This record gives sequence, structure tokens and C-alpha cells, in this order.
Amino acid sequence: MAENLLSHINLPDDLRKLNVNQLPQLAQELRDFIIDIVSVKEGHLGASLGVVELTIALHYVFNTPEDLLVWDVGHQAYGHKILTGRKSVFHTNRQLNGISGFPKRSESEFDTFGVGHSSTSISAALGMAIASQLKGENKHHIAIIGDASIASGMAFEGLNHAGVTDANLLVILNDNAIGIDPSVGALKNYLTAVKEGKNPKVNNMIKSLNFDYSGPIDGHDIFAIISELERLKKVKGPKFLHVITTKGKGLQKAEQDQVKYHAPGKFDKITGEIHLKEESHLPPKFQDVFGLTLVELAQQNEKIIGITPAMPTGSSLKFMMDAFPNRAFDVGIAEQHAVTLSAGMATQGMVVFCNIYSTFLQRAYDQVIHDVALQNLPVIFCLDRAGLVGEDGATHHGVFDLAYLRCIPNMIIFSPRNEIELRNILYTAQLGLNHPIAIRYPRGRGEIVEWQKPFQKIEIGKATILKKGSNIAILSNGFIGRNITLALAETEKSELFSHYDFSFVKPLDETLLHSIFAEHESIITMEDGVKSGGFGSTILEFAAFNNYKNEIQILGIPDEFIEQGTVEELHSFCSIDRKSLLSFLSAYTK
Amino acid sequence: MAENLLSHINLPDDLRKLNVNQLPQLAQELRDFIIDIVSVKEGHLGASLGVVELTIALHYVFNTPEDLLVWDVGHQAYGHKILTGRKSVFHTNRQLNGISGFPKRSESEFDTFGVGHSSTSISAALGMAIASQLKGENKHHIAIIGDASIASGMAFEGLNHAGVTDANLLVILNDNAIGIDPSVGALKNYLTAVKEGKNPKVNNMIKSLNFDYSGPIDGHDIFAIISELERLKKVKGPKFLHVITTKGKGLQKAEQDQVKYHAPGKFDKITGEIHLKEESHLPPKFQDVFGLTLVELAQQNEKIIGITPAMPTGSSLKFMMDAFPNRAFDVGIAEQHAVTLSAGMATQGMVVFCNIYSTFLQRAYDQVIHDVALQNLPVIFCLDRAGLVGEDGATHHGVFDLAYLRCIPNMIIFSPRNEIELRNILYTAQLGLNHPIAIRYPRGRGEIVEWQKPFQKIEIGKATILKKGSNIAILSNGFIGRNITLALAETEKSELFSHYDFSFVKPLDETLLHSIFAEHESIITMEDGVKSGGFGSTILEFAAFNNYKNEIQILGIPDEFIEQGTVEELHSFCSIDRKSLLSFLSAYTK
Repeated sequence: MAENLLSHINLPDDLRKLNVNQLPQLAQELRDFIIDIVSVKEGHLGASLGVVELTIALHYVFNTPEDLLVWDVGHQAYGHKILTGRKSVFHTNRQLNGISGFPKRSESEFDTFGVGHSSTSISAALGMAIASQLKGENKHHIAIIGDASIASGMAFEGLNHAGVTDANLLVILNDNAIGIDPSVGALKNYLTAVKEGKNPKVNNMIKSLNFDYSGPIDGHDIFAIISELERLKKVKGPKFLHVITTKGKGLQKAEQDQVKYHAPGKFDKITGEIHLKEESHLPPKFQDVFGLTLVELAQQNEKIIGITPAMPTGSSLKFMMDAFPNRAFDVGIAEQHAVTLSAGMATQGMVVFCNIYSTFLQRAYDQVIHDVALQNLPVIFCLDRAGLVGEDGATHHGVFDLAYLRCIPNMIIFSPRNEIELRNILYTAQLGLNHPIAIRYPRGRGEIVEWQKPFQKIEIGKATILKKGSNIAILSNGFIGRNITLALAETEKSELFSHYDFSFVKPLDETLLHSIFAEHESIITMEDGVKSGGFGSTILEFAAFNNYKNEIQILGIPDEFIEQGTVEELHSFCSIDRKSLLSFLSAYTK
Repeated sequence: MAENLLSHINLPDDLRKLNVNQLPQLAQELRDFIIDIVSVKEGHLGASLGVVELTIALHYVFNTPEDLLVWDVGHQAYGHKILTGRKSVFHTNRQLNGISGFPKRSESEFDTFGVGHSSTSISAALGMAIASQLKGENKHHIAIIGDASIASGMAFEGLNHAGVTDANLLVILNDNAIGIDPSVGALKNYLTAVKEGKNPKVNNMIKSLNFDYSGPIDGHDIFAIISELERLKKVKGPKFLHVITTKGKGLQKAEQDQVKYHAPGKFDKITGEIHLKEESHLPPKFQDVFGLTLVELAQQNEKIIGITPAMPTGSSLKFMMDAFPNRAFDVGIAEQHAVTLSAGMATQGMVVFCNIYSTFLQRAYDQVIHDVALQNLPVIFCLDRAGLVGEDGATHHGVFDLAYLRCIPNMIIFSPRNEIELRNILYTAQLGLNHPIAIRYPRGRGEIVEWQKPFQKIEIGKATILKKGSNIAILSNGFIGRNITLALAETEKSELFSHYDFSFVKPLDETLLHSIFAEHESIITMEDGVKSGGFGSTILEFAAFNNYKNEIQILGIPDEFIEQGTVEELHSFCSIDRKSLLSFLSAYTK
């Protein structure tokens, strides 16, 4: 093989010195580099493998960072990062103090817009394009968006606006027919028909929005991409290029099982074989407790429906989709629709479990308020990935939910302390609560291996006494309270401390609170959500209203965006891990 | 003229007894009835006049309430209300304890889904249709949506899902080329081309999403509508009917000036002439202070851009759109896009004023967190209609904003106390704050007639001492504090009370707070937002963190959805009007 090219490339300027005929070799090297590192360091694999040629072509044809690339979501931007000055630190990807797994403005001038949540790229790039126009600058502005992301309403809003401007915007549709799970929806079917040449009126959808459409072209033919990008450089106004790629391209197993290889964990870089962990003795993931329990309940209650916006695998709703395909729906990246669809179903007496990651429910905040809570419809929101999620970092932490939900009238908010509580609240909710409920639980595993116990009804609004002590009451919210339990087990004079699980942030167990405030000098609250306006703040409101003068300390996430790291590292950063809590509690006993 | 028909119609069953040839007369009577009442009681006029024929036809053809109608937004549902049991109470429309200005489930079984915010109808009706299918019911499910609403991303999400179902869903596009202001965007242009027969490939947009498209038909030809609805009743799966109507139909002036006659206030029912109020001596509306000041600033600062999602008139951004058409954008009902577009512009150094009603910013909550605050982009959010908005009621109050915004890192939150403060914070913000800011101000007029004073810079995070007293400190937030000032002017022993304006909820003026807590026994906070997690809660967090033991009372909106009424009535309901405050404060001095 010829001399290694990638080793000489640190920035796109280096790339542009290559002869176009060298680019296929570079593509191979870039693909190998990504596989080498992700196979041992973990991360998102398939998406970046799919756009290797497109990434090289974009930086080859356009004058980045002067010309502005906006990657939608950013799972696919590893090649971009490696070619734009971060090759030598790419092994720190997604680690504490390492580079982010997503494009991030503070990390590089080549990362023009921070991403993580989907479907923002068209709006952001259009904003840049309009700004350039007003400033009299002659730049190119390019949004690269997948077929799952473009089906989200926000992307449509961006297209709808762009189509009536003469902004210098190029939207590139990276069409691989899959997001994290396979894409769904009428637009996906339409695009498939276009790709397969089956649709006699190809491309009209995009042309209807006044875009200059071209494609579809083969996204792994680097010469074809470069020639088309060169042509489009000279076209004025909003342009749309439809590129067909294969997710996981170049690693056979990743091409074959695209869902698993979205983020496969560690794997053999030659064979692609995933290194399986011995997991049978471990407690289950909370998502599986949700998914498996829902199937059990759905067997008994035919009114139950499950909804996920594009996370059937991540939420484990796939179990219900397999068992009851008519009653479980993946609606695509459409959180707003998912919530109001759930509300519509609830008006007809269906028992709807709407599973949305905590961070993504932010996308449907108005629908929760206006379509569900205001009408007091008993939709059951299951918020997976609540709290600090780890390596996905600042864009994905589910730390605002308690604050933004508890201000909404009619809501019940519950954080299970363990798998059995999650199981039982799912059971309880489907019995009928006459209110919407948000059940928030963390990413990852719980603590109880034998969790499939007979169902027990949970009393709404009731807190649990975990430990009685003499002076100081610790009020924790759900699973994160485990760190208190662990710390108390090691604390000297632990007899000073009571510990209560306020799994219900709303309604509060006021009866118990009165006795807690009466019986303790000091109160400590602890949550894995933001301290501003969260669970602790609720306790302060209770205390103020009842004129209690006990000292109250609030533990939780500080008022800043928390970056990536392991969950344990981030808990430590926020002083809510076992060790920090141990020193915190020990200070009370000195 | 023949015998009056409407007087005999209380419910759709009565309507269905009429001969189809009587329906044009009924349409005339219904139109007159709406005009009669709205001309003296005020309300939304144009939208309901435009769908008189469609409304009659729907209830004539379909078996309501068994068949389910979902009106999008609901401005247009007056005819529906009158024909479904609410004729005799229609004169109480939008009043305290009267009927709601929007469809509302608790009001009538014919109101299948509560609305107010736009673009929810397709998702809701699809949810109902899927539920019916699962229950084996043979119902019809009909979403009636305007061309402004259907351009919002959420509606696209609903269409995209519906197109891959076989749900019995009929989407009726009520295309009048206007929302509150004229519709915008590429889809609007496309629909116009379809209407005018200019587009050789009509309807492909909707057909691409796998809908059975029919139309366009004349929405004022009741026979044509009925015959088409009868045909569509027999068509299975998702169907789409494109109906052309004229907003304000039947009242000449309302047809001619559709923006003004959206909600014209009182007018002459014969001539249509609006009864002008003598307003020259009144203080300005806050929205005009925003709109006029922005023009002044834009003249001096060429980086300034103005954005509104479909509220150019309501926000008064129209002043800038007239003065600087290249730098002011109405992006349609697309709050998510509006926010991320603003973020994109801000990355390129533009100074973006993104004006969104407080209640509608809920639609873009994730974009505020993920695209603006996380990247700390200095977008200037201007939240009009913050607090209780009055007659629009529960769907439109802007009472959650302080709670849902203050938990977001990097945000500055400011509520001006009067017009001059609004003017000066707009001036200050465009000088550059290095943070996003949310400026929230109420619907309606301020208190200062002579408000166009020279600009003065506002110090970020600084609270204002309005009155010094001895024992009790009242901390209010912005304009609502005026009610405290008025109450204090009448309170005996007012020397006991200090009064501070904490116009900045974030960052807090902690220096002043320390002296306030040191110098007063009791603290009262007062805001026109929800008490759960709002401004008062911020003060509790400060007090807890600093271990202050002063008694703290929080005044604000209770934890329930507040219905419609005048702003004064609603303030009274929440005990934050002058009179309630006077008795509240007097109790302290007894």
C-alpha cells in the first residue's frame, strides 16, 4: 500500500493538498482509524463509518472553517473531528476532560454549531447563511442531516423557511434509512421510493419547498460526491443534495446489524465481533424493567399502548413492539407528536405509556403542559435517562425534568428507588390515576437481580422511611438515594441520621414532612437534578409555607452545564457520589 | 325571509333534520349571530366567519359527537360552539365563569380536544383514530387545520405518522392564506400555486405523505363541501381535503382587513366599522415599546435582527419589518425553528431579538436549553404576554416562564418594571451581554405616557430599592410590583414595609439580598408566575444556602390552571391585585 496519508493530515488544509485520486485511500485510512480507536475506547461507530467519503469530500471541496458545516445530531462527526485538528486526542473521545462525542463550538472553530439533539442543523445553518448575506460575506453554509432527523418537525420548519429565502444554504440528506433504529414514517417511504426509482414523480416533495434538488447519488463514490459538490458550489439559493449511504460502511458486521453497531461498545477491529461482557449476574437495566414489565401488563390490560419517538431499542419498548405490534408505536423523532398523539389516545380511554428520554421531553414541553396536563389526561410518561447520563455529556443529561415538570399543575412525578419500585409504579399507573404521571429513572442498571416480583400497588404521594435517626433527616429522590444509603453505612455516628425516600416530588408526602420537620434539627435534600427549582426547592417551599425554621441543605446538580464522563465521575463532580456524601455527612458528626 | 332556522337548533341533531337546501339560509343566520354577539362582546371574529359553511357541513354530514372533530387552535370554533349546545351562553364567551374562547373538553362532549396553541389537531385526531381502531369502533376522526398551522413542524410530524397508518383520519386544510397575520413560507407558496392551478404537479406534497388528497374546493359552497364529505366518509385510511375559504367571509370590512378583524374589539355589526377608543392619552402597550424601540436601536446597530414566529402584529415586530425588511423575519408558526435560527445567526455575531409570547416559548424549550444556553449564545428573547393574559385563558397564560427558565444555566432573566425599563434593557442587551437573556413583559399597557427617554444602560443583576421601611421587605418582580406600590400607598403603617424590585430573577442581586435579610424580620415575594419553582422559590434557595431564618411568604400563581377573565379579575383570583394585597398587608399591621 502507498505511504500513509492520514498521518500527514492534521487540518483540512493538508487534505486539500492531496490529489483527488488519493482520496479513496484516505477514506480507507480514516475508516480504519475510527475503527481502531472506537473498538477499544467505545463510542458511536456506524454513523461515522457511513459518511467517511462525504466528510472528506466536504472538507476537500469547501473552504472550512470559513465555509460553515453543521452536522445534525453529531453521531456521524468522528471523521470530521479527526480531519480538523483532533486526530491526536481522538482517543479521549467521550471521556472526562476529553473531547466531546458531538461537535462542540468551544472545542474547535470547525465545529460551527453544538449538536446532540436532532434536527437543528437546517435552522442553524440557515441562520448562519442569512447572517453572511447581511454581512456581505460570500460563504457556503451546509447542513448535513440524516433521513431520521429530517422527518422531525423542526427540520420541516427550517426547510419551509429556507425555501422562501435566497440564502446560500446547502442541505445534504444523508439517507441511510436508519437513525439509531430503522427510520419510520411516510417521508421515509417516499425517500425509499425515490431511491429505488419507483416513484414516477421523484423529488417533488423537496422541490415543492422551493429547493433546487439533486440526487440521489452514491455516498460512497467520492468522485461523484466531489463533482456534485463542485457543481452545487456555483448554484445560488437553497439547494438540496440527496446522498445514499450505508450505515456502518466498511465493517461487515456493522453493515449487517446497524442497530447494534450504532454504539457497539468494545469490539474486535478485524472481525467486528463485539466483546460480550458476562452480564447474567448483574441487575437489569431500568429500561428493560420498563420494557419487560410493560409486556406483562399489556397482556392483562388491553387498553395499554406504548409510544416511543425513535427509541425502540434504547427504551426497550421493542419488547412490546414485538409482542403487540398493533399497540406499540415508534413514531420517529417526533417528541411533540408523540405526546399529543398519546393525549388523543387517552381521551378515548386508552392507557398510554409514552416513553421519552428525559432530555428529549424538553422537545415536547408545551405538549405536556397544553395537551396533557391542562386537560388532566392520564398519560403515563416514562422518562428514561433521567439524571446524569455519562459519556453523551451536556446535551443529553436529564437533569432539568424535576424543575420543569413540577411547576405544571395536575402532574404526578415519581422517581423509583429501584427496579421493583419502577415495576410497581408501572403497574399502579395503568390501574388509573386520573392524572398524568412522569416516571423518571436513570440510564443503566439498578441493584436488584431478582426484580420480577408480584405486582404491588404504590400509594400515590407516599414517601418511604428508610432509616430512623435522631438529628438530621436526609430526603432523597429515587435511585440516587442509594448513594446516601451507601454513605450512611460507612458514616460514624450514623444514628444521627434519618433517611427518607421522597420518590414522589409531586404530590409531596406532607404528613410525613410535618413529622420530619418536627423531629429533626436539620434537613438535607438530595437529587440528581438541578438544584435551581428542583426537589430541594419543593421542600423549601413546604418549609416556608409552614414556617419551619430547620436548617435545610440542598444537594444536587449545580447551576452549570455538566460535561461528559462516566456517571460515577460526574456524580463525584456534583458531590452526590457515595464518597463525597460520606465526607459531607462526616462533617456533620465532627 | 323564511322562518328563522337557528332559533330551533340547539344541537347537531336538530341541524340534521333540515333539508340541505335550507343550509345556506342557516349559514347566513349563523354568521349574523356570530357578528351580533362578537360586535358587542368582543372576541375572535374573522376565523369563525370563514368556516361557517364548513362547520355546518361537518355537523350535518358526520354523526357528532360520536364522530370526533378536532379544531386546530380553536379561534374558528364559534360556529361549532353555537351549534353544539352553547348558543344561549355564547354571549359569555371569554368572560370569567363564561364559556372558553377555545374548544375545551370540560365544556362540551362535542369539544373532543382542548386547543389554543396551534398544530396539535392532526396528532390528537390520529391518536383518537388509532384508539377507535383498537377498540373496533367505526368512527370518523376529523382534524380541521389552517394553512398557517399546518406549516408548523408538529403538524408535519402528525402527517408523517398518519401516512403510514390505515387510521380512519380526515385532515381538512382550511386554506385562507392567513393565520393571525398572513401565512408565510415555502409550503404556503406551494399551496397558493395549487389553488391557482399554476402548479402542474398539484397536491404531490400531500400525496407524497401517502394521503388520499382531494380538492381544492370552495369552502363557501356548502353543497360542494357536503357532497365531498359524503364521498370521503366512504374512503378508508388517511384522507386530506383542501378547502379554500376567505377569512372574515360575509362582513366586507373583515374580508378586506383580515389582520385587524382577527379580533377587532367592538364594532358596528352593520357597517363593520370598529369602535375606536380614545387612546392617545394612554401609556403605550409594552409590545409597542418593544417594536418601536427595536427600530430605533436597529438604526444605530446594523447587527440587530428581529425574529417572530407568526406574530408580527401581536409582537409589534411589524415596525421593524417595515423599516428594515431584510433584517426582520416572520418565520411562521415555528417557534423551534425561530430559536435555533436565532442561535445560528448569533454564532455569526448578529444581535438577535427573538420575540415569542411567553406561552409559546414552551414550544421551543429544548432549543432554548440545547441550542442557545448550552452554547451560551447571546440571543435576546423577548417574551411578550408574560403573566396572566386575560380572556384567552388557561392555554395562553405566560405563568410558567420564570420556573422553566431559571433552572437553565447561563440565562439572564429580566422583567421590566415599566416601559422605560423595557426600553433600557433592550438597549443594554444589544450592547452585548455574553449570555442569553429572557426579557418578559406583560400583555397590555404600561404606566408611563412619556416613555421615549434617552437610553440608559441597566446594570445586570441589580435590584432596585423602591421604598425603605423597618420590618417587612416586599420583593416583587417587574411590572406586577405596581400592585404592591398601589397597595402600599393605601396601607396604614406603611412605614413598616420596604419594597424592592427584583427585576432580575437571574442573576440575583445577592449583595442587596444579604442586607435585606439582615434588616427585616419578614420577607414577602410577589410575582405573576407560578409559585412552584418561580421567583419566590429562588429567594428561598438563597435564604437556605445562607442559613437565614427570616419568615418568607410567597405570593404568585397557585398550582392550578387559571381560566379566562379580565387580567384584573384573574389577578384578584390569585390575590395579587391591589385590593387583595392591601388586605394582605393590612393583616401584618394589625
